[in-house]
Amino acid sequence: MGIFSAKGVVYKAVKDVDLGPNSDEYYLRANVKAPRMAGFLVKIFVWFLESRIFGSLLLYLLKRNNLIHKLVTNAEMEEAPVFVPLHPLEDLNEREVVAIESDSSVPGRVQQAVECIPLSVENSWNGPKTGSFGRWTIMDYARAYSSREITPLMVAEKFIAAVTKSSKTPLQMSFFINFEPEDILRQAEESTIRYKRGEPISALDGVPIAVKDEIDCLPYPTTGGTKWLHRFRQCKADACCVARLRLCGAILVGKTNMHELGAGTSGINPHYGTARNPYDTRKITGGSSSGSAAVVAAGLCPVALGVDGGGSVRMPAALCGVVGLKPTFSRIPNDGYAAISGNTDPNPANSSPKIHYPLLKSAESMPGIRLAKYGEWFNDCSEEIKASCFKALDRLRENYGWKVMEVTIPEIETMRLAHYATIGTESSTSLSTHLKNLDYAELGWDARVALAVYGAFSGKEYIKAQKIRNRQMQFHNNIFAEADVIVSPMTGVTAYPILDDARETGELDYINGAALVRYSIVGNFLGLPAITVPVGYDKAGLPIGLQLIGRPWSEATLIHIAYAIQALYVGEYKRPEVYYDLLH
Amino acid sequence: MGIFSAKGVVYKAVKDVDLGPNSDEYYLRANVKAPRMAGFLVKIFVWFLESRIFGSLLLYLLKRNNLIHKLVTNAEMEEAPVFVPLHPLEDLNEREVVAIESDSSVPGRVQQAVECIPLSVENSWNGPKTGSFGRWTIMDYARAYSSREITPLMVAEKFIAAVTKSSKTPLQMSFFINFEPEDILRQAEESTIRYKRGEPISALDGVPIAVKDEIDCLPYPTTGGTKWLHRFRQCKADACCVARLRLCGAILVGKTNMHELGAGTSGINPHYGTARNPYDTRKITGGSSSGSAAVVAAGLCPVALGVDGGGSVRMPAALCGVVGLKPTFSRIPNDGYAAISGNTDPNPANSSPKIHYPLLKSAESMPGIRLAKYGEWFNDCSEEIKASCFKALDRLRENYGWKVMEVTIPEIETMRLAHYATIGTESSTSLSTHLKNLDYAELGWDARVALAVYGAFSGKEYIKAQKIRNRQMQFHNNIFAEADVIVSPMTGVTAYPILDDARETGELDYINGAALVRYSIVGNFLGLPAITVPVGYDKAGLPIGLQLIGRPWSEATLIHIAYAIQALYVGEYKRPEVYYDLLH
Repeated sequence: MGIFSAKGVVYKAVKDVDLGPNSDEYYLRANVKAPRMAGFLVKIFVWFLESRIFGSLLLYLLKRNNLIHKLVTNAEMEEAPVFVPLHPLEDLNEREVVAIESDSSVPGRVQQAVECIPLSVENSWNGPKTGSFGRWTIMDYARAYSSREITPLMVAEKFIAAVTKSSKTPLQMSFFINFEPEDILRQAEESTIRYKRGEPISALDGVPIAVKDEIDCLPYPTTGGTKWLHRFRQCKADACCVARLRLCGAILVGKTNMHELGAGTSGINPHYGTARNPYDTRKITGGSSSGSAAVVAAGLCPVALGVDGGGSVRMPAALCGVVGLKPTFSRIPNDGYAAISGNTDPNPANSSPKIHYPLLKSAESMPGIRLAKYGEWFNDCSEEIKASCFKALDRLRENYGWKVMEVTIPEIETMRLAHYATIGTESSTSLSTHLKNLDYAELGWDARVALAVYGAFSGKEYIKAQKIRNRQMQFHNNIFAEADVIVSPMTGVTAYPILDDARETGELDYINGAALVRYSIVGNFLGLPAITVPVGYDKAGLPIGLQLIGRPWSEATLIHIAYAIQALYVGEYKRPEVYYDLLH
Repeated sequence: MGIFSAKGVVYKAVKDVDLGPNSDEYYLRANVKAPRMAGFLVKIFVWFLESRIFGSLLLYLLKRNNLIHKLVTNAEMEEAPVFVPLHPLEDLNEREVVAIESDSSVPGRVQQAVECIPLSVENSWNGPKTGSFGRWTIMDYARAYSSREITPLMVAEKFIAAVTKSSKTPLQMSFFINFEPEDILRQAEESTIRYKRGEPISALDGVPIAVKDEIDCLPYPTTGGTKWLHRFRQCKADACCVARLRLCGAILVGKTNMHELGAGTSGINPHYGTARNPYDTRKITGGSSSGSAAVVAAGLCPVALGVDGGGSVRMPAALCGVVGLKPTFSRIPNDGYAAISGNTDPNPANSSPKIHYPLLKSAESMPGIRLAKYGEWFNDCSEEIKASCFKALDRLRENYGWKVMEVTIPEIETMRLAHYATIGTESSTSLSTHLKNLDYAELGWDARVALAVYGAFSGKEYIKAQKIRNRQMQFHNNIFAEADVIVSPMTGVTAYPILDDARETGELDYINGAALVRYSIVGNFLGLPAITVPVGYDKAGLPIGLQLIGRPWSEATLIHIAYAIQALYVGEYKRPEVYYDLLH
């Protein structure tokens, strides 16, 4: 780590930092001591934060308490700033992987992907068909439609009924911010006609896919979880990723709920209700892509899109017991996003357990995968999460002969703070145009706190954060020279209760917040692909996710590993409390 | 420009901005109303700026007065930020240019360059040999050494005598911060032996070259114009550019004077004396590379190295009547710089009238060069500068048939402010490690003002500035689709007096400062190559420079144009008041 001076840490040269298991680099726990705040206390806190006199003092104290001054602002290091985590596109020569021809049509690419799905993977899932629980996949939908067991229109009708029911008491799941039955039925009718003619566009034809309300998707406004963003920024066209799904015949079934402005991890939204966890409706889904994870968990969609600027796809995926994938920075064009997450990583996709993104030649496990694990970090989570994740590693070792190697990843807490300064500054800059025209009373209370903090970083802090990015990119390059993936829990805690006092004001719960993002930041700050896979449940039955962080562009390897893990857990996955089977 | 709102400008989409001569974009003059300050007033100003209570208010007012809030901080625009003005290396297919093989040895590359110097260019110069004035070039030195007219040792002795004399009263030129006669003589002896053996390393062997005291060059400390930087940051090796010159046999003759920390444009230095203009010793050289421009002007070196983060090579070159070249961002590796100029562009070279950098196949002028000129901007300078620069364009049209085309370059003042926020933030971040250990009494007064302002930019302001960079890169790409170079005066004023009250405190003269940098910022902020060429003198006999700004990597074209211009001015160049002829 370096020497603490009165004013700031002096970081060692990267080449002098030992990344081995016996390194003397120490693991710094997040210095979060603030008590949970909700209700009236949050309002008072906002009043102080936004006041000219107390605001800057309070922000100074907040930053100092979080060690931002010591670890970032006044830290000393030699590295040049790296502003964008762009990785040159390279051929990784991954084993058991074939590449899609990128000049094919979009449906053509889907077809190539379908052809690469190994039969043994499909067969290892028995899904809702038999006793053991598993969610329907895109391919299950495609086969059911093709065999005329069911039509897209029938699925759409079931979907609309399920969403309508789930939105009312007693459930009040608050999955969606907007969904228009008429628009869904129109798409489903067209798809049904295509199947009748025997001319589906692709395996995605007729498959219901939900879209986080931060991504443009016609005919809906893009609210970003707010009551006002869509007034300032109109949705004029589908985002690139949505347009591609539409080209493939997918049914876009509405805009999912999210934490306001993506500026929080709980998913508690005072404007549209708080999305509820299908495994326990009294618990949070996690956020910010709360609704997207929840609809996949509840069986309403085999896949949904989210945006992941600091774990916002992967955290709720883990808490809701589904797979969440954040691709390599820049893999998916980012036009058509509400630009509220800075440029940290606005491009990820939330995904069902079986989204087929890159291609696998066979279901055989890749031989000899090396999983790097940093013990101190790995263990910084609840006992139940630790136990489940350890067990998953044991099973991978036993069943596939994969190797777990101990490493040290230095300055993880520094990276969390640097990422916060980065996404905060970029986000508040992007939003500044709107915010100056906004009546702050339209903002949720916790979003006002976030925006006050986001806007408080100096140019120097921003640049220092980019220097820290440079260090971490070097550290991770060195780790990936020896290991194929880095493995960690996905979150430090499982889904926690939605408390009544948070309904109106949201809540400030920095201890749970820090525990939720503990493992997700690396992927965003360094632009690395990462995936979370369910590997069990805590005693209350709430899902636990294991995270795999890969080299740039190694999504295929990550998905392969996700298959391999899920194959070991077939028969152990639990059906959620709230679940809809749209195919039967 | 856009619509002024109460809070900030709303910039038009780039595609909607007319870059033609009849555009309705208007030219905004720098809003500088502050009176010149020096002496005691500067001290009081510093006291206010550095005080906790008044400082931030004063900085706010300063920024508001300069329209930073309107034009940058609160401005609205769609562009993504571009943090580094990196241009993909491309083959420009320039006419009359051959490329050096970059895998040759460094002296091998120099030899290739020498072979490309057209004889007619050499012959068109009669230099100090005949009546008309011209400075000795690198090739003049090489030929004189090879013909044994004179030896490097003899030149070194003359050099040492000249510097020693010029440093004393009455001249007190303050060219150098450090120069060691013994080290110079040792290098000269070795070079002399090589020539005696008939084995000079390259055309640079034995050529005296001075280095700005911001660039590492053994055995000297790197002071950055301060009394303290070298205590915190040791010079342990030659910078890459210096090491290459040394490999070629050049004699490194010492470290030239500069504006403290490069944080000013006058070259007034309270610690090492103020470098004086060889054309009028009562006048400034301009800065920050003050000494480097002055030693070339005074005939002490055919070439000297500078650093150009905001015009710091080109401005003093223009004021001292020599050529100054700032290459494309990233052309020269930037290791071994004191890192006080941020990453705007730490890599340029100050150059003699005949530095041969890229290669010209012949001395024939390139046919049909198209010079873009923005009238409003071009005319925003003193009458004498305007007259000289207009005349230069007329002569180019008449003699070479080149075409001058009118264009509009929008948002130039916005770009100056955005560049200031950028270089200021980057510079103060780089220096922050040192500054926190520094007794501010060791800093010059005007440097303290600069540092206070540099450190006052928010993360949002920094990012907004990078969005402005994106706009300007697009504007300039569009202009370069039609034109080969952009032409402008190099400065808005010629060298002005060094006043007595500025000796101790430096001076705050933002009106002259803004006039000096008016034309230089484009090259730095957008990473474009630019060159200044002398095109006459004002009534007081002070030099005037014409600037040519080129496409990325088009240094060869710029140097070709510089040759072509100088060929027209042979016989008109004036010998400075202070001049040393080291070859006779």
